[in-house]
Amino acid sequence: MLLSGETNDLDGVRHFGEELLLYDLLIGIANQSHLSHLHLKVYNPREPFSPGENPQVCNLRLNDHYISFTSQVWVVLGMPEKEPDLFYILGNKVRRDLLSHLTCTECYFSFLSSKVSVSSTAVAKHLKIMEREGILKSYEREGPFIGPARKYYNINIAKTYVVTITPNIFWYRGLDLGEGSEVPIELPEELKNLGGMVLTFRDLSKKLEEVLRELQAIESQRNRLMAMIKETYLKEIGDMTQLAILHYVLLNGSATVDELSDRLNLKEREVLQKASELDRFVPLRIKDGVITIDDERLKAKLGGEGDAGED
Amino acid sequence: MLLSGETNDLDGVRHFGEELLLYDLLIGIANQSHLSHLHLKVYNPREPFSPGENPQVCNLRLNDHYISFTSQVWVVLGMPEKEPDLFYILGNKVRRDLLSHLTCTECYFSFLSSKVSVSSTAVAKHLKIMEREGILKSYEREGPFIGPARKYYNINIAKTYVVTITPNIFWYRGLDLGEGSEVPIELPEELKNLGGMVLTFRDLSKKLEEVLRELQAIESQRNRLMAMIKETYLKEIGDMTQLAILHYVLLNGSATVDELSDRLNLKEREVLQKASELDRFVPLRIKDGVITIDDERLKAKLGGEGDAGED
Repeated sequence: MLLSGETNDLDGVRHFGEELLLYDLLIGIANQSHLSHLHLKVYNPREPFSPGENPQVCNLRLNDHYISFTSQVWVVLGMPEKEPDLFYILGNKVRRDLLSHLTCTECYFSFLSSKVSVSSTAVAKHLKIMEREGILKSYEREGPFIGPARKYYNINIAKTYVVTITPNIFWYRGLDLGEGSEVPIELPEELKNLGGMVLTFRDLSKKLEEVLRELQAIESQRNRLMAMIKETYLKEIGDMTQLAILHYVLLNGSATVDELSDRLNLKEREVLQKASELDRFVPLRIKDGVITIDDERLKAKLGGEGDAGED
Repeated sequence: MLLSGETNDLDGVRHFGEELLLYDLLIGIANQSHLSHLHLKVYNPREPFSPGENPQVCNLRLNDHYISFTSQVWVVLGMPEKEPDLFYILGNKVRRDLLSHLTCTECYFSFLSSKVSVSSTAVAKHLKIMEREGILKSYEREGPFIGPARKYYNINIAKTYVVTITPNIFWYRGLDLGEGSEVPIELPEELKNLGGMVLTFRDLSKKLEEVLRELQAIESQRNRLMAMIKETYLKEIGDMTQLAILHYVLLNGSATVDELSDRLNLKEREVLQKASELDRFVPLRIKDGVITIDDERLKAKLGGEGDAGED
């Protein structure tokens, strides 16, 4: 976790999952008020506040700031979640700026710090967070001049994320772009030069724009269609739980009985019961605890309109 | 901001842009340690810590928790940023779960609260954040039974977001899906029924998968190509600033001189100077302070390979 190394006296910490908050808060306070000393107290109502009181305190050090906590504050120091939360990383403009600079060239700390408009303490914090989340990799190397080795940072992932959020649809997907960077692209002979590469990149970017337009059209249609499906189902059948199963299976392609039982707070057998009711209106395939739409039976039911909606 | 209505005594607050942190921190502590009273003190090094000391304090109320701050803590209570930060919203699993439930049916507070595994205080907090950011809209309506009107929540945006992050490329785009939901889709007669809609949705989802595969392929190629461009430029020309301009223009399609001067910490005339140097290697069009790649001159330079890289 962020404070590891300084947290030996925080054994038995309870997990709260937002351990960054206290760190951010402290750095924030420190940046703004130039503190060298920060003291936090939390009073438990069962031991009413008295000015002279000094509850059991644990000390730790953040950058140049010494902080003392009482046991009640430890709860905000949890372990980080396992998988990197890219949305959290992108949810901060400074981090976005840093990432954008990092894609252009290999950057060392003071270079990055000079490019963004926040304090170097804040830059250090954001770099730490991104390194911890596995977004950045850092390595030391001698600078051009005599002096200590510089710490350089590289982006450590290659992914495209797609998120759709509408009143009827919410899903997201991470697409892995592979190690890639090392493996060069095979270009025709006449394009194996700077100009050729730039032109090829321009052509790929034009294709990208087309693909984005398609994506936009499909998602806008799926949004409107899902609205119609929800409305129709509620009017004709009116069972919320069946609709919830249909909605989930449509958005995810398939669903396990366990997923649905967790999500809908139902027992597995209740999920199966609801699914079999749903099956009367929308044919399902239920196999090895996995529920999918049975396209064949659905098409048959509609009189073999196989290419339905293909246009 | 989140605490508006309870912050009258926080006039002259300095902006820090992460005003949620303190709120989250307090709610977190409160949830975990069942506090009715929380007291925060920040000691300024210029007024060294003495146990009896009691700096000027401001009191405010969060849900059922009374908090006191000293002036130094006010800095973490800033005004929210203007535009909704969707990445921040998505950076929290509970909010993602809530959104996912909201897309299935219209939800009221206690229903949502029963669906996720955190305290109702936390759910209230997350709903507040999303409403404040413009992601959710809430409205009151009578419930099915006699009693007070229930507060319902709706998702208030319809967008698809695409983000690519690699060692060589970082860009993101929000695609507007339009109001949409109200306007039904024109379906062929035989599909104007639940089954037909479901089948059409399935077909659209298959198309979506194809589009995602194309997107993945294009971005993986652009990543590798950008790596080659960077390497070649540094080997053959070796000017970091020219490369930064090229990188930015390629990723954004175009760039204004002002953008570049902010981004590269250069005067406008220095940007134009560097651009004209870059132009010797990669033809540019510089018009009304906007810089783009001059595809025509580039193709001419390459001997009219107009369809370069089209495959």
